[in-house]
Amino acid sequence: MGARNSIVLFFFMLFALSSASPRHKNKYKPCKHLVLYFHETVYNGTNAADATSAIVAAPQGANLTILAPQNYFGNIVIFNDPITLDNNIHSKPVGRAQGFYLYDTKDTITAWFGFSFILNSTDYQGSINFIGPNPVFEKTRDISVVGGSGDFFMHRGVATLTSDAFEGKYFFRLRVDIKFYECW
Amino acid sequence: MGARNSIVLFFFMLFALSSASPRHKNKYKPCKHLVLYFHETVYNGTNAADATSAIVAAPQGANLTILAPQNYFGNIVIFNDPITLDNNIHSKPVGRAQGFYLYDTKDTITAWFGFSFILNSTDYQGSINFIGPNPVFEKTRDISVVGGSGDFFMHRGVATLTSDAFEGKYFFRLRVDIKFYECW
Amino acid sequence: MGARNSIVLFFFMLFALSSASPRHKNKYKPCKHLVLYFHETVYNGTNAADATSAIVAAPQGANLTILAPQNYFGNIVIFNDPITLDNNIHSKPVGRAQGFYLYDTKDTITAWFGFSFILNSTDYQGSINFIGPNPVFEKTRDISVVGGSGDFFMHRGVATLTSDAFEGKYFFRLRVDIKFYECW
Repeated sequence: MGARNSIVLFFFMLFALSSASPRHKNKYKPCKHLVLYFHETVYNGTNAADATSAIVAAPQGANLTILAPQNYFGNIVIFNDPITLDNNIHSKPVGRAQGFYLYDTKDTITAWFGFSFILNSTDYQGSINFIGPNPVFEKTRDISVVGGSGDFFMHRGVATLTSDAFEGKYFFRLRVDIKFYECW
Repeated sequence: MGARNSIVLFFFMLFALSSASPRHKNKYKPCKHLVLYFHETVYNGTNAADATSAIVAAPQGANLTILAPQNYFGNIVIFNDPITLDNNIHSKPVGRAQGFYLYDTKDTITAWFGFSFILNSTDYQGSINFIGPNPVFEKTRDISVVGGSGDFFMHRGVATLTSDAFEGKYFFRLRVDIKFYECW
Repeated sequence: MGARNSIVLFFFMLFALSSASPRHKNKYKPCKHLVLYFHETVYNGTNAADATSAIVAAPQGANLTILAPQNYFGNIVIFNDPITLDNNIHSKPVGRAQGFYLYDTKDTITAWFGFSFILNSTDYQGSINFIGPNPVFEKTRDISVVGGSGDFFMHRGVATLTSDAFEGKYFFRLRVDIKFYECW
């Protein structure tokens, strides 16, 4: 067995181990399931035409065009990002992700999100409301779906965030895997 | 049929059309129903005695007494507004609306709200917690009721916001039609 | 009966009266119950090594190292505070409280919280998401548990906040009594 196969096997075992925890095993089947992507470009002082978000608060000594020095701790960002069905930023948007996040750790990067998806496509019309923590460097992060309107009236569920892309400090794309467990 | 009647008929048809969508038809009956109003005066640098809210964050280049240039995009406002049973700002308050909203679109006005109603009247005592998007120019906007305390212990529901008044950029009144679907 | 006993009796009666209200009597039994403490030191310009939170927004005329003049109205604080099982700040942390609060009253101190507990101990792993109002001077304040992940997947409940300590304006400790009523 060559080195490449050993590496593949190693990651396979790692994956098997990490998903084997019976503790977090979710026995429930979603009543509705959506996978969407959103794409964000943070304003950095020179990209006004492309920016979909802006730093609006910063800690003492920082400013609003450079993310704060201690892993962005203390920044609040307001965003209005296009949502697409795949991870191509040029795909036709099916809605907008609107709201805010804040960075809340000094020695690593973690964020706390409060936002909504406003969907307007042939498949889905309505809004989905989210809150929860986003520890950016973990492979997957679960936030709460706390309600919605239109096609998502009174829905609850869990949204799993994955970083699909990072390009420098001012662009990222999140994959959002939304599993609804209360559908009405 | 005179011009006035034609206009009435036109609006009636418009209303009939707009409410005919079976897709968003809500078949559920609320277990509790409240209609309340809240009244907000944003601090603009000269109205300290009357102001019930203040701009506390703004994007690069904007300040805290003038709403930001691109449809207020990037402003965060903290508020503590009187709640009344009717749309008269001089009516006896039954509680306070407390929390924040942020403006999150550059080419139109939309906001995202996180706040609570703290009710203290003979009819209701307790708090109601809300989050969700408020696209200001739509006739009605639905946000989520995610919980509460006192008379609203563990309640969930949907609150429909309507703009009851706008007077300049620094005063507005919202009608809040709260339908609870989980009452405990 | 001496003065001291009269005072004790008076407070006992006050307590009996305040807890006798049948209106807010909660007839439900929690499916899970946790009591935790978190400890916060707000950055004041001179305590960078100890601070676990920072003022990141302030109203016109205020700054980011001194809490705002009208009962902190208009401040937003981002925090990342250690959580412990008892009220000793030197106890081994079982997780972190991460998120924000804002001060929203001019003539007394009230706050509005949006945050998560990220627990990582032998007993509990997962996150709990909270929003709601915290009128600081009331003995107990109820906020909403709107969801969670891991051991708290889809959970809902009510968290009762109590001020366990205040030391000056820049340190406090909150006791959080979390009662889950939907456990999955």
